[in-house]
Amino acid sequence: MTSTSDFVADHDRKARIGLDEAVFCASKTPEQIASIVSRLSGEKKPALFTRLAPELLAALPEQWRRQLEWDALSQTAVLGSGSCEQKSGLVAIVSGGTSDARIVAECNRTLAYYGFEAAVCQDVGVAGLWRLQSSLSALKEFPVIVVVAGMDAALPTVIAGLLPAVIIAVPSSTGYGVAAGGNSALASMLSSCAPGLVVVNIDNGFGAACAAVRVLNAMNRLHGGS
Amino acid sequence: MTSTSDFVADHDRKARIGLDEAVFCASKTPEQIASIVSRLSGEKKPALFTRLAPELLAALPEQWRRQLEWDALSQTAVLGSGSCEQKSGLVAIVSGGTSDARIVAECNRTLAYYGFEAAVCQDVGVAGLWRLQSSLSALKEFPVIVVVAGMDAALPTVIAGLLPAVIIAVPSSTGYGVAAGGNSALASMLSSCAPGLVVVNIDNGFGAACAAVRVLNAMNRLHGGS
Amino acid sequence: MTSTSDFVADHDRKARIGLDEAVFCASKTPEQIASIVSRLSGEKKPALFTRLAPELLAALPEQWRRQLEWDALSQTAVLGSGSCEQKSGLVAIVSGGTSDARIVAECNRTLAYYGFEAAVCQDVGVAGLWRLQSSLSALKEFPVIVVVAGMDAALPTVIAGLLPAVIIAVPSSTGYGVAAGGNSALASMLSSCAPGLVVVNIDNGFGAACAAVRVLNAMNRLHGGS
Amino acid sequence: MTSTSDFVADHDRKARIGLDEAVFCASKTPEQIASIVSRLSGEKKPALFTRLAPELLAALPEQWRRQLEWDALSQTAVLGSGSCEQKSGLVAIVSGGTSDARIVAECNRTLAYYGFEAAVCQDVGVAGLWRLQSSLSALKEFPVIVVVAGMDAALPTVIAGLLPAVIIAVPSSTGYGVAAGGNSALASMLSSCAPGLVVVNIDNGFGAACAAVRVLNAMNRLHGGS
Amino acid sequence: MTSTSDFVADHDRKARIGLDEAVFCASKTPEQIASIVSRLSGEKKPALFTRLAPELLAALPEQWRRQLEWDALSQTAVLGSGSCEQKSGLVAIVSGGTSDARIVAECNRTLAYYGFEAAVCQDVGVAGLWRLQSSLSALKEFPVIVVVAGMDAALPTVIAGLLPAVIIAVPSSTGYGVAAGGNSALASMLSSCAPGLVVVNIDNGFGAACAAVRVLNAMNRLHGGS
Amino acid sequence: MTSTSDFVADHDRKARIGLDEAVFCASKTPEQIASIVSRLSGEKKPALFTRLAPELLAALPEQWRRQLEWDALSQTAVLGSGSCEQKSGLVAIVSGGTSDARIVAECNRTLAYYGFEAAVCQDVGVAGLWRLQSSLSALKEFPVIVVVAGMDAALPTVIAGLLPAVIIAVPSSTGYGVAAGGNSALASMLSSCAPGLVVVNIDNGFGAACAAVRVLNAMNRLHGGS
Amino acid sequence: MTSTSDFVADHDRKARIGLDEAVFCASKTPEQIASIVSRLSGEKKPALFTRLAPELLAALPEQWRRQLEWDALSQTAVLGSGSCEQKSGLVAIVSGGTSDARIVAECNRTLAYYGFEAAVCQDVGVAGLWRLQSSLSALKEFPVIVVVAGMDAALPTVIAGLLPAVIIAVPSSTGYGVAAGGNSALASMLSSCAPGLVVVNIDNGFGAACAAVRVLNAMNRLHGGS
Amino acid sequence: MTSTSDFVADHDRKARIGLDEAVFCASKTPEQIASIVSRLSGEKKPALFTRLAPELLAALPEQWRRQLEWDALSQTAVLGSGSCEQKSGLVAIVSGGTSDARIVAECNRTLAYYGFEAAVCQDVGVAGLWRLQSSLSALKEFPVIVVVAGMDAALPTVIAGLLPAVIIAVPSSTGYGVAAGGNSALASMLSSCAPGLVVVNIDNGFGAACAAVRVLNAMNRLHGGS
Repeated sequence: MTSTSDFVADHDRKARIGLDEAVFCASKTPEQIASIVSRLSGEKKPALFTRLAPELLAALPEQWRRQLEWDALSQTAVLGSGSCEQKSGLVAIVSGGTSDARIVAECNRTLAYYGFEAAVCQDVGVAGLWRLQSSLSALKEFPVIVVVAGMDAALPTVIAGLLPAVIIAVPSSTGYGVAAGGNSALASMLSSCAPGLVVVNIDNGFGAACAAVRVLNAMNRLHGGS
Repeated sequence: MTSTSDFVADHDRKARIGLDEAVFCASKTPEQIASIVSRLSGEKKPALFTRLAPELLAALPEQWRRQLEWDALSQTAVLGSGSCEQKSGLVAIVSGGTSDARIVAECNRTLAYYGFEAAVCQDVGVAGLWRLQSSLSALKEFPVIVVVAGMDAALPTVIAGLLPAVIIAVPSSTGYGVAAGGNSALASMLSSCAPGLVVVNIDNGFGAACAAVRVLNAMNRLHGGS
Repeated sequence: MTSTSDFVADHDRKARIGLDEAVFCASKTPEQIASIVSRLSGEKKPALFTRLAPELLAALPEQWRRQLEWDALSQTAVLGSGSCEQKSGLVAIVSGGTSDARIVAECNRTLAYYGFEAAVCQDVGVAGLWRLQSSLSALKEFPVIVVVAGMDAALPTVIAGLLPAVIIAVPSSTGYGVAAGGNSALASMLSSCAPGLVVVNIDNGFGAACAAVRVLNAMNRLHGGS
Repeated sequence: MTSTSDFVADHDRKARIGLDEAVFCASKTPEQIASIVSRLSGEKKPALFTRLAPELLAALPEQWRRQLEWDALSQTAVLGSGSCEQKSGLVAIVSGGTSDARIVAECNRTLAYYGFEAAVCQDVGVAGLWRLQSSLSALKEFPVIVVVAGMDAALPTVIAGLLPAVIIAVPSSTGYGVAAGGNSALASMLSSCAPGLVVVNIDNGFGAACAAVRVLNAMNRLHGGS
Repeated sequence: MTSTSDFVADHDRKARIGLDEAVFCASKTPEQIASIVSRLSGEKKPALFTRLAPELLAALPEQWRRQLEWDALSQTAVLGSGSCEQKSGLVAIVSGGTSDARIVAECNRTLAYYGFEAAVCQDVGVAGLWRLQSSLSALKEFPVIVVVAGMDAALPTVIAGLLPAVIIAVPSSTGYGVAAGGNSALASMLSSCAPGLVVVNIDNGFGAACAAVRVLNAMNRLHGGS
Repeated sequence: MTSTSDFVADHDRKARIGLDEAVFCASKTPEQIASIVSRLSGEKKPALFTRLAPELLAALPEQWRRQLEWDALSQTAVLGSGSCEQKSGLVAIVSGGTSDARIVAECNRTLAYYGFEAAVCQDVGVAGLWRLQSSLSALKEFPVIVVVAGMDAALPTVIAGLLPAVIIAVPSSTGYGVAAGGNSALASMLSSCAPGLVVVNIDNGFGAACAAVRVLNAMNRLHGGS
Repeated sequence: MTSTSDFVADHDRKARIGLDEAVFCASKTPEQIASIVSRLSGEKKPALFTRLAPELLAALPEQWRRQLEWDALSQTAVLGSGSCEQKSGLVAIVSGGTSDARIVAECNRTLAYYGFEAAVCQDVGVAGLWRLQSSLSALKEFPVIVVVAGMDAALPTVIAGLLPAVIIAVPSSTGYGVAAGGNSALASMLSSCAPGLVVVNIDNGFGAACAAVRVLNAMNRLHGGS
Repeated sequence: MTSTSDFVADHDRKARIGLDEAVFCASKTPEQIASIVSRLSGEKKPALFTRLAPELLAALPEQWRRQLEWDALSQTAVLGSGSCEQKSGLVAIVSGGTSDARIVAECNRTLAYYGFEAAVCQDVGVAGLWRLQSSLSALKEFPVIVVVAGMDAALPTVIAGLLPAVIIAVPSSTGYGVAAGGNSALASMLSSCAPGLVVVNIDNGFGAACAAVRVLNAMNRLHGGS
């Protein structure tokens, strides 16, 4: 065994678990990211980069930075063209407030990268229940609903009590005091009194999208395409 | 100063803060409680005893035990007659599930001891929103609403977003996993996105009742009786 | 509004969210449970009772107790006949160790109540990876896999890295020291480096089953039955 | 359902719960805030902006920034004229130390926006009890007292033991070590041995003001104006 | 080195740090305690046993049990005669409520074992400040004051703001919800805004007494007896 | 895949990682344990059972119970003869106080099962440093030292600062208040300022023994027997 | 009561509790501090300012800044001349490592302000026990010893087991991982197995000095000067 | 005892515990570090400096900075030549992802300073198990394996279940949400179901290296060199 610290891209992942390679950038150095872009670019492989902060992007050498299609709100970048086909009508993303927009965007971009165009319905927190109610009939049609909420995170419980869809809840770190860091929202979602809610890590819009793709891919495998 | 460990009853409390004496029993020995009942009984003073578990009650000498009007669900006892007058229409107690009944009962008994007859509306958790909706028009009339909820504790947020009343939220320790001990409910209530919700300690039905009495007494002082 | 503390059964829930009524018993009194059984029994409604400890069962009046088909390991009971049809081949339940058997059983009984016969594969913790490997080809066929694990909870990460299924992870409270209560397993699952894992509350076999049913029902709605 | 991420202002809130719209700015981008100001300004709607940090204010386009009447200490801004009438003598704000001034200011500005002029009494922490005692006779007249305190947060307990008012306690994040973040103050307030104290989130001067307004509005509804 | 599991009594401790041997019993088996009593008794050595629960006492062989002078409230026992001389006027023990009596008793018994007779002043919690005020002039005379308090634990802060004594604060585990286990009281004491308060572990009446003895012994060493 | 819940013994483990099978009993039912004993006994396989509480042992059928050589203090049992050869002089177990004896015993029994006879040195906590100092020269000879300590857990730091051995620290759950559950000891050990200390889970005497065996086996493999 | 937010200096504090006024600056604005300096300066009153960061100092108007005698390491400033007399031989400050120097300095400056010249002995952490041992005979002479330590914080336990002095332990926030923020050191000190150790808040060198002054003042009052 | 704050280098440490002096820089000032370099340099003593951030390095006077051989990724510096001999084949460092590279580097540099050349195998997280499997046969040869992993930290469990080596696990603070700060990884490692895993503090690559050196030195002492 020779000493090696090279990034090992996981190109069989698509075949194995149905999800193309994605690179989490938050704790990597610019040198590490540049090296990854260089390698994947040379192999003509597509990839999604998440948590790519503007400072990190700016620190990349120009030749690699311009290969990335970067989005400011979601702090994601796509290398290569992503999925061409965009299936719609299968996933909705619902959020409690304007402050959750960055997580909604990360989820939305990830779904698009994997070939699903999500419907998005923001700012329908349960402190103003009538806002949600006007969206309910539209939401009823979706087999999978991602719900992003912070603070008391009551929204996924209310939706899961009204709709039969697969409900994937994403706690948001929005807030201060006991809500700071997202732990109140996480605990609220995990202890939801609505049956069958599932939860991902705080602020993990990427993970929620991947879970949605697992559901939709499973449907597809079982029924031979939709 | 002589060494003393006697319980010092606070009989001016009514005049000072508008709330008669109450005795928290959970961490007292039967001897200590018997001594308190003996003293108060001799002085013909009324008192409310909270968290008086059946084992503790059973360990009291017969002569003191029979002076107490004890209630099993709330684990409260009243010494003396309590308040004769019972004002109604001022406080409602709403709860999320059957499991919160003991807290609702403690709150209800405390309010009765202080002279207020509460309306009670249980099992209206937001996982089944229509149950709450059928009670809303009745709830609109109350100036003060105590809301007891455990687990995700979404109920007080929903109510505070729909009604103008004073909303006093009581987290319940009902539940398991991340909900165990009531901390998820407490955090959810404190970080509610509905404006102006106030919160008391976990399982503190007594404290919520006292807060309600403070509000109703303040109204009364300001306007010369209702 | 009259004062009421009656349990309000949610019989439209099946139509609304696709899941029949279930009753969580852990924090209810025998009187409350007897009253619920009485009501549902009178209305000829089926129901699943979870967290029904033997002491609680024993405290029920004989007439209601004998109506319940109770299972010791899962501490669940079914009132009425449950689902007649049992679809198989759609859900597998995998667990790390013998100690997780009670959660596996709760999940399994809940799935059966909702009409799904799960395949069960226990004691395949990753400390002995070859045990899992011999089950992998069989597991590949299932669209939904529930994974129960305690302590370091590495099992769902390993499975989610190898298989494309919907992976629903249930942290188990098995263990002591930092593992006590299940928080290490919960944190491990939520921070899994495998993409698209979803998580439910600690020891929540019931919730994992409900989530699986949501996925399978959504597949069914989309494709007109399977 | 079309994809939408627009902020949905809640202009019926005043009618519904008695509290005009307020916008929490801390986790919003300058673009999001500018868009909200633009919309509300076009509709001639008043609004209160909280947690509007100077950097965020500075990043707003000039045309929107000059429409806001911003206050540095409280980091709040008012769009429009706010409430013209200012009722006094109904709310007092008491605080433990100079360090709590920003929370006192947020509470004070919120009350003013909703039409109440608060009396303010700062730096009366219980480590110097005589400072509080000289203010007690004046405080006795107020039906509602907001108490802001950090660290050991003994102040609301002392006040609630001496006065019959509605006591709304706000934990402050002032301090270091075990006091850092405000959790010691929050726990101290929730476990107060004075009966009937109610608590809001850490540093939540806005929420305390809203709770006070709920109390005063309820008094007003019950008695037909004061 | 031979294998040994014998208890090693620390009989030079008196000479070294001024405090005679004491044995913490809570996590020892009856066999271990019996062996310790046997050894010390044979050597005619005095000792204080703390946290000696009645069940543990009852499980000791009769010959060793009757050598111990056991006290029910404090759950302490003295082997041998303890200190003959009892200096008074040097330490006062003050507590917030009747529920703290067991800790006060442990502290009091430990002080007596080390030769100091404490003045005791219970049930003077700050929710009823006038009770404390009537004791203040007496308390002013003591160089060392131990203050036991649970829940919000405001009492030591108030006393330390009024008196120049050495203030040793003992958090009590009395209470429920956020107060359960004594952590709210501990945090409150550590973050006290009164200068120069010192704190020991939750429920540690023994430790507070030892700290008081260290202070009084230091005074004595410096000034050649008092 | 057939549905199976059978315990899968790991008999190749010895060959693979050098450690024979061990069964953790704390969260298993008597039925599960009886089934495991039955199977292993039939196959003439040895096994170590840990956390086998007396109630659990008593609930086993007589035929299986008598096959187990059970030890009360350590709550361990050995099925079969264990390791015949007992190498000595390689591991020492040091502990802070009498209360840690059960963990020392679990570690000691596990080492014996794997063929190592440990030297044991108890009750040498650093609050009485001279007790440790008298053992130091003997301890210097051991290549591996397991140190069990609770509360402030200063002992492993002191030893690791004086001796070159491999130091395996085991936090003990002995204590109350902030020490309860062993978290203070765990944190103290992990943040030790002595270099190269390693730590296992709270109360995990078994794990510490296994770690010691890994070290000793590695020495042996490298040097062809000792 | 007029609205007031003025800082209320506590000039009787010296007479009442024996400690001159001190101002905690960390959460105050430059305007607030300037106003305090201005007032105290006008009244010719001395004061100690703690946690006065260089940025805060730099933001003060020149006229007030130059009145303060500021020290960089301790981040304290003295207004006026402080105590002229400096008693020595009464307090020693001992610390575990170079990293604790800022806390040692805060404690030392506070003691000097109150008239006590401390002996200081740094970098004697127990991972190198011989460093402490060489200082022991000198330390034996001091009636009060302040011990500052971070991480595993074993130092105060070792000292309290060897010396009869009053031991005031200060946890330091030095460290990372489980030691970050000082909680491991705090827990270690509170759960010390050495009897009679007392503890102050994390990094609270000021509070430890005040506690030492309380002890020394109490000695002085009892014996009429030393 | 004169007042002293000088750093006391521990040059006998090599003889005592087999590990040369190392200096933790994170909480020291540039002045303190410069003084240490100056002293050691004058005495011609080698030293390893850890957590020496670039800002801290840049703040050192040129004369001392150029004496240090600094490495950016590991943030370590070596003063003097370090160990000349580099033994290989004894330690492997394995990590889960690119983000753990800085910890791997700190461990690697520390091992090199102490004379061991480690084999390094990065990016083999268990979410992609086949990457690990291809390295297994090489890893089998090493007596000591350091495993660095963050988030769910399943990697050391998998390795410890497959290989007989001494496994030293280092939790990494990589990640966000529940993984932030490294506590999920730490808990996962401590509660590993693989027997005999040992753990060091979060991000403590230095400590893991020291532990490895202790093991290798112990082997060497026992067998007279390898």
